[in-house]
Amino acid sequence: MKRSLENQRQPSSGAPLKVGVFGGSGYVGLELMRLLLNHVQADLALVTSREYAGKSVASVHPSLEGLCPLIFVEPPALGSPIEVLDSAFAELDLLFFAVPHAQSSPVIGAISKCERFVSGDLRIIDLGADFRLSAEHFSQFYKQQHPCPELIAEAVYGTPEVSRDGIKSARLVANPGCFANCVTLGLLPLVLHFGKHPLVARVSAVTGSTGSGVTATAKTHHPARNESMSSYEVLTHRHGPEIEQALSLAQSGATKIHLVPHSGNFSRGIYSTSFVTIPDGSVDVVELYRKFCATEFFMRYRDVTPRVLDVRGSNFCDITVRQQGSEVVVISTLDNLVKGAAGNAIQNMNLMYHIPETTGLCAAALFP
Amino acid sequence: MKRSLENQRQPSSGAPLKVGVFGGSGYVGLELMRLLLNHVQADLALVTSREYAGKSVASVHPSLEGLCPLIFVEPPALGSPIEVLDSAFAELDLLFFAVPHAQSSPVIGAISKCERFVSGDLRIIDLGADFRLSAEHFSQFYKQQHPCPELIAEAVYGTPEVSRDGIKSARLVANPGCFANCVTLGLLPLVLHFGKHPLVARVSAVTGSTGSGVTATAKTHHPARNESMSSYEVLTHRHGPEIEQALSLAQSGATKIHLVPHSGNFSRGIYSTSFVTIPDGSVDVVELYRKFCATEFFMRYRDVTPRVLDVRGSNFCDITVRQQGSEVVVISTLDNLVKGAAGNAIQNMNLMYHIPETTGLCAAALFP
Amino acid sequence: MKRSLENQRQPSSGAPLKVGVFGGSGYVGLELMRLLLNHVQADLALVTSREYAGKSVASVHPSLEGLCPLIFVEPPALGSPIEVLDSAFAELDLLFFAVPHAQSSPVIGAISKCERFVSGDLRIIDLGADFRLSAEHFSQFYKQQHPCPELIAEAVYGTPEVSRDGIKSARLVANPGCFANCVTLGLLPLVLHFGKHPLVARVSAVTGSTGSGVTATAKTHHPARNESMSSYEVLTHRHGPEIEQALSLAQSGATKIHLVPHSGNFSRGIYSTSFVTIPDGSVDVVELYRKFCATEFFMRYRDVTPRVLDVRGSNFCDITVRQQGSEVVVISTLDNLVKGAAGNAIQNMNLMYHIPETTGLCAAALFP
Amino acid sequence: MKRSLENQRQPSSGAPLKVGVFGGSGYVGLELMRLLLNHVQADLALVTSREYAGKSVASVHPSLEGLCPLIFVEPPALGSPIEVLDSAFAELDLLFFAVPHAQSSPVIGAISKCERFVSGDLRIIDLGADFRLSAEHFSQFYKQQHPCPELIAEAVYGTPEVSRDGIKSARLVANPGCFANCVTLGLLPLVLHFGKHPLVARVSAVTGSTGSGVTATAKTHHPARNESMSSYEVLTHRHGPEIEQALSLAQSGATKIHLVPHSGNFSRGIYSTSFVTIPDGSVDVVELYRKFCATEFFMRYRDVTPRVLDVRGSNFCDITVRQQGSEVVVISTLDNLVKGAAGNAIQNMNLMYHIPETTGLCAAALFP
Repeated sequence: MKRSLENQRQPSSGAPLKVGVFGGSGYVGLELMRLLLNHVQADLALVTSREYAGKSVASVHPSLEGLCPLIFVEPPALGSPIEVLDSAFAELDLLFFAVPHAQSSPVIGAISKCERFVSGDLRIIDLGADFRLSAEHFSQFYKQQHPCPELIAEAVYGTPEVSRDGIKSARLVANPGCFANCVTLGLLPLVLHFGKHPLVARVSAVTGSTGSGVTATAKTHHPARNESMSSYEVLTHRHGPEIEQALSLAQSGATKIHLVPHSGNFSRGIYSTSFVTIPDGSVDVVELYRKFCATEFFMRYRDVTPRVLDVRGSNFCDITVRQQGSEVVVISTLDNLVKGAAGNAIQNMNLMYHIPETTGLCAAALFP
Repeated sequence: MKRSLENQRQPSSGAPLKVGVFGGSGYVGLELMRLLLNHVQADLALVTSREYAGKSVASVHPSLEGLCPLIFVEPPALGSPIEVLDSAFAELDLLFFAVPHAQSSPVIGAISKCERFVSGDLRIIDLGADFRLSAEHFSQFYKQQHPCPELIAEAVYGTPEVSRDGIKSARLVANPGCFANCVTLGLLPLVLHFGKHPLVARVSAVTGSTGSGVTATAKTHHPARNESMSSYEVLTHRHGPEIEQALSLAQSGATKIHLVPHSGNFSRGIYSTSFVTIPDGSVDVVELYRKFCATEFFMRYRDVTPRVLDVRGSNFCDITVRQQGSEVVVISTLDNLVKGAAGNAIQNMNLMYHIPETTGLCAAALFP
Repeated sequence: MKRSLENQRQPSSGAPLKVGVFGGSGYVGLELMRLLLNHVQADLALVTSREYAGKSVASVHPSLEGLCPLIFVEPPALGSPIEVLDSAFAELDLLFFAVPHAQSSPVIGAISKCERFVSGDLRIIDLGADFRLSAEHFSQFYKQQHPCPELIAEAVYGTPEVSRDGIKSARLVANPGCFANCVTLGLLPLVLHFGKHPLVARVSAVTGSTGSGVTATAKTHHPARNESMSSYEVLTHRHGPEIEQALSLAQSGATKIHLVPHSGNFSRGIYSTSFVTIPDGSVDVVELYRKFCATEFFMRYRDVTPRVLDVRGSNFCDITVRQQGSEVVVISTLDNLVKGAAGNAIQNMNLMYHIPETTGLCAAALFP
Repeated sequence: MKRSLENQRQPSSGAPLKVGVFGGSGYVGLELMRLLLNHVQADLALVTSREYAGKSVASVHPSLEGLCPLIFVEPPALGSPIEVLDSAFAELDLLFFAVPHAQSSPVIGAISKCERFVSGDLRIIDLGADFRLSAEHFSQFYKQQHPCPELIAEAVYGTPEVSRDGIKSARLVANPGCFANCVTLGLLPLVLHFGKHPLVARVSAVTGSTGSGVTATAKTHHPARNESMSSYEVLTHRHGPEIEQALSLAQSGATKIHLVPHSGNFSRGIYSTSFVTIPDGSVDVVELYRKFCATEFFMRYRDVTPRVLDVRGSNFCDITVRQQGSEVVVISTLDNLVKGAAGNAIQNMNLMYHIPETTGLCAAALFP
């Protein structure tokens, strides 16, 4: 049954959560703020930025003018003593990290020794890649030693539809990558059904330009990106193994992912198309998906083709499937900044604090 | 002083408003629904569509899937007896009209004879053009007789920043046109200051493609619209006289508008650039605007250039002004479907029902 | 060796070809004109349009103003006697057809009985689908009886890189579909190498909006197309069997195509990504492609990722390939209106008339 | 009468011009190459780039792969002796400069002392800003001393429609700025007619993102530019005084320009809208424009609205005008990289070498 929407308009009796965003100058940080500012049970209390410390958040993100009175705070320096860390985040219940990979784990490693983290009074959701993979995979795909391998076992991989129970009690959640979440959600019903059989999925996925972050590069230069399409890291993108690992949480067999990422000329969204040959072509795959999606609020089964615009700005992942015997095509789409990042993280927050799971996440997509 | 944001998270003690949307198949109707579904003091109770009657709203607007359980209802036929009209809208406090011009006024004319309208128990906000202009101007610019001229005097022009008090007690509000609201808000501080002097404004304004509505035409055919820019109805667009009339509500003199509308290749937004020669170049126009915007929550003065993306999806109108002596340039931008249509209408609804004015309208823009 | 560019700047000693375009109101017709107007050995002598007969071509296609003095001519009515047809096209050497499917073959059937066609004095290139498939496949995928099945055997499938020799002597050429040409060219080197083995290709391909033609539809309405992505006719698109048939011309085995077409939000271009498992993973596929492309002027092998913008407006098809053992990904891109339609047709024209093959087709892409 | 197209297909009897591009890594340099490679009377013989010296042009500009075999050459160092300069460009008839402002004039200053420049055997077209303005205006608007003021008097301002005769005999041509050329051409007929009266033009102009050049910046970051619109340097952009100066070449009075530049979300094109109050409202301005444009091949008068796409990739400037008594609106559009830069420069080259003026510039726009 769909998770209920009831009660989400009324704040619970208790005080709202105090949350902070570590790294608020990028697109994911901004998206967290956009969503948290409309969340009835969370108060955004602190946002850090090394670059903009002392400046108002709204001066850096003009879209928040009139809505967010906060000033960017300098984060504690690396190597700060525990007291400094304790005091820096003393008023927070939850801290989101939205910084480039390998930048969160050293800080989180230090915080993990603070009393408030140990006791579960301060919990963490990392939207970067540091705690998504094993240390071995991390060093293989991110080309560097993991800065804090001892904490990896602590982290729960944060796709609610895959590991809802683990998330509820986690102190540290590793929010999934954007491509990864889109493909994982798309393949999940198949994998749950054919879980013992090792599946092979060939995945062509297209991302919007916000996936490259806030810093201008040749790849996101408007004249070069606009009206074009290209591919990158063909068969070598690190979200490939992340998807394999995420799906392994839901099955006893192993799924092999051949991932081809593409750069699209839209700003927001991921559109993924997966080819899978299933072991038994007599299974009604459409029915399988329909049933599964009926149990998950943010996964919407579509009879007609999903469109990026139907999910843009929302936390939904729209899915359809087509079958010709054992040849199956799964199509899934989500907003890379919402269900692919900040929205999914807030869904995790809701789970961790026993807030109705959809709270703050029921805005319809900005269509058109 | 900025209107307060306080209390808008808590529903008032009373029951929420029951509202209906007459004409829910287009972009403005969809936008009303998108916003109303997140409004804590309004319940969307009825949506009509002649074309889609009997179909679920979400099947026509997939972005609302999972959020809106309503079925499109056939609107009462033209010429229906009063009882039919009374009964059709019996449960509603407020009815929004989002239909093409000349289609709302015959229906509203009929409803105006119902007891519930007369008593103020059913009030109306028309997002079309029917009640914005005098009957004479209507027939001149819309090339047809006004279908219901006797009701024009009843209607209050619905730019809250211009006629807030009138709106509060109105039974019928004529929500402004999208270009009109953008330019009117942009020129308002100048007009209030130099109100006795007849000003002349030369306005170049660019609209996104959603301004043309949901029906595909040659003008909005993607290959022809994308990567292009063009102009239309140069100096003859009907929002010119609408702006003149709107500003006349705020000044004793008259402002002359020379309007050049353009078609841009973005989807949402209007960007307007107005050249005005002021009678006294020693006035500090920037200061004038800064002060004025400080009193209006949805008008944000920008030191740097406004950008469409900072208002997209939000109810804000971002403004800046540049001055070289008596030569002044005013730049204003808003989302044509929000502050240029549905959001402004909900702002009017809030005023009419003594709900805090910003309720349901504080979502940040979807940037980027 | 690359086909030579030599001599293409100098017109041959003979008089230029006289060519006509049957159906000049659409995008393919316009593209033919754009290219022919810069072709030194062809004179555009006649353009038909039922809708715009009597109007100047430039009034319908303003981009041709100042460059094309022609007036649209009414095409002969269906069922016209042979003399009428003979006389209508008496001055032409070659007639291009750029009309929707099932509209060219009845006319071509009638023309085929004219003396000038029989003698090879008037030859035909059809850019529509009528003569691409067998009659059986046509009726299966286009849901109607073929209007002129007796002429199908006469037609040569017009991908020069596949059937150059046949094209040279053809009286009737069936120019390939846009998706089809992009995927066929991409897979051609593999198929030529592994031709005896039945290959399976899973293809995800994205088309720009011009692929839908000049008529505005809901699918190409700017607000719905812009910033979005969607898919259609998943596994059922008729270019699937067309590709299979085209590749069968180059191999003894059979290739199975699983095609997923997508709608992108750019105007021009097709970007296709094909997954193929090859029978022998020890073959150096990159080297295979590099060598093959070195022999074909319009197929450019790319070490880095191909981009739509590098081919937009040009007749090139850019290709790259990635290999992990027997798992191969082929990426190819072309401009759907040029190498996917009009440019390829002119390449065929050059072949048919022994004009250097690249004549009129060497403009660089419009990047950016 | 329109300048004739005759003869432009045939190379003249003499050998083709040898031309070089100084600064070939940017968009203007690329556009020069794109056009020169299809020019029958010019041979591209040399392209410099300090950054890419030694690399193939096609590796930096993949759109030229297969069409341009050149290797980037290191330009002579600043301060090189005359012999070095002489030898560097010894084989050239003409050198185009496409480098940022203040970078061309020191080099050109040195070259101007070479025998081949003095004798007119090596001529120069500078597409940068260095020789467009007086030294005084240059230092005022470009915030630095002019690096080579003594050569300014030598330079002819290169709008052919304004100063065709001067260009024909010039050794050094200052090619106009993109905004400047678009607005100048738009106002030219008015200024020629009312030349004694000082006119005032209020100009709103929108540029595509290629106007910002090849280097990625926050302003051209795809997520921030796409779907947005903004303005910059309101009333202070340096093309304002450039337009004033350009128009002064055509009139005895002075025109005052109030220019508001905007950033649009298309890649190529400028769309300018100018408000002018004329001294005599009884003049038929439409007729004035129609007549004037009939004499200039690259200025096309449009009855209906000009569109960016109708000129994209072409050397045309499309213009329309609307009049209400003495209130006039002029709308003009061109491709900023063609008629706004490289195409206009090649038109100048044709003039300077008595090649038919339209040679190499008759490709139709890439519509759509």
